[in-house]
Amino acid sequence: MENKIILDGKRVADTVKEKLQPRVEKLKEKGIVPCLATILVGNDPSSATYIRMKGNACKKIGIESKKIHLPEETTTEQLLQTISDLNADEQVHGILLQHPVPEHIDERLAFDTIAINKDVDGVTSTGFGETAFNFGRYPSCTPAAILQLIDFYQLPLEGKHAVVIGRSPILGKPVSMMLLNRNATVTTCHSKTIDLPTIVRQADIVVAAVGKPNFVQGDWIKEGAVVIDAGYNPGNIGDVDYEACSKNAGAITPVPGGIGPITISMLLNHTVKSAEESI
Amino acid sequence: MENKIILDGKRVADTVKEKLQPRVEKLKEKGIVPCLATILVGNDPSSATYIRMKGNACKKIGIESKKIHLPEETTTEQLLQTISDLNADEQVHGILLQHPVPEHIDERLAFDTIAINKDVDGVTSTGFGETAFNFGRYPSCTPAAILQLIDFYQLPLEGKHAVVIGRSPILGKPVSMMLLNRNATVTTCHSKTIDLPTIVRQADIVVAAVGKPNFVQGDWIKEGAVVIDAGYNPGNIGDVDYEACSKNAGAITPVPGGIGPITISMLLNHTVKSAEESI
Repeated sequence: MENKIILDGKRVADTVKEKLQPRVEKLKEKGIVPCLATILVGNDPSSATYIRMKGNACKKIGIESKKIHLPEETTTEQLLQTISDLNADEQVHGILLQHPVPEHIDERLAFDTIAINKDVDGVTSTGFGETAFNFGRYPSCTPAAILQLIDFYQLPLEGKHAVVIGRSPILGKPVSMMLLNRNATVTTCHSKTIDLPTIVRQADIVVAAVGKPNFVQGDWIKEGAVVIDAGYNPGNIGDVDYEACSKNAGAITPVPGGIGPITISMLLNHTVKSAEESI
Repeated sequence: MENKIILDGKRVADTVKEKLQPRVEKLKEKGIVPCLATILVGNDPSSATYIRMKGNACKKIGIESKKIHLPEETTTEQLLQTISDLNADEQVHGILLQHPVPEHIDERLAFDTIAINKDVDGVTSTGFGETAFNFGRYPSCTPAAILQLIDFYQLPLEGKHAVVIGRSPILGKPVSMMLLNRNATVTTCHSKTIDLPTIVRQADIVVAAVGKPNFVQGDWIKEGAVVIDAGYNPGNIGDVDYEACSKNAGAITPVPGGIGPITISMLLNHTVKSAEESI
């Protein structure tokens, strides 16, 4: 394909962040410092890395981050108490509970304890429902990033057939609903889907959110299709076999440098928005 | 087709209601009378009919119904107050706000004011999110009815391709999520879908929830497919051209006598369950 577009996530993220800077300054003039509270439970090294990355990203644009690190043996009740305290803390505008928490904790209950007006990471059941019903304040960040990318490149959605591979609560399900709200016809696939290649071959837009490295194959991609890789696997490998899928794709995201950077910018954007709405 | 199954909704509904009777008696022995509060705003005659039908269905199995009829000129604020009062009323186990309310009222806000533990009609954003995440207490009643029918007839879902036509908050979206949670591959279509017939022809299961009389055509149906008509249009006409679709369908719901009667039984079931959980 001659006119293939490499969808540059870093460029999209930079554009988002540029627009945030003056909003943060405006808030500070009013005496408000946007603040994201992050909660890390236990000692998972990649989770610690993610938290650090998010903290750094906050710092760069002037968002304060309040880092809470709880020990591995934290009980569900203790975690809920921490979240309730942050819900009540007027200095805190967003709450991010790093997934996964240790297995003995009821993660869903913890997520759903986050106040809806501070759910900047888009993890609550209520937040999901509001997103699905098209009035969500803070959609889950990766789906929001996918839509941001699509809009940045003005890729049409109406009447297009989108095939989403994956059905997780923070990715496959919300992005399916968001694409549906933008008038795409949406097929959601998963591990029990029969003959996935045939279904993906019909897609005008493929969203890979399956968590399996290089899972999506080149001959699954229809000529000219948009291929969005929302996967992140160890070693910074996406869910899409990039080289192979590039052949037919009309537009494609690389990994790294695709959806990842935009996701963090969405988190920042939601935190700033929450601070603005706290006035 | 020789082995075509006519999916008999009345039979499914009767089976549900038979099982409710002893549960209601048990509650009454404990001094609890399950109570559904219905709110009708304005004077729409079909809404008044629906409310009456639901009230009668409650009565038949011993559920009390508390009928609230508000005038056409009710404000959003007044309606929210009524709902809040019912939320606080320990005698009330379920709240049903009849759709549609007059246009000047914020219906979504009203729905979302219903307490989640009394949302027996499955209309809140939170209830939808919980259903989508597969731990919903009271899914929206028509989608719940569709699943009840499927399970009654032991129709397999895993790996099947379900095509849902419609994306409303109480029907197309929740049934899509429920079928997905049962391991179907789900395509959600709507008015902006291009070449709907070709998509429907791939379906092992077709759910018509579009609100257009006799919309689904006979030659859209794959040989042996399950055809579920969740439509209700004036004159008791479904969304499916029954005669034409019967030819290829392996199983099909009639209208009337299909999903309709089961829907009401789901409402009763949720109300009894809510009363049981109030203990």
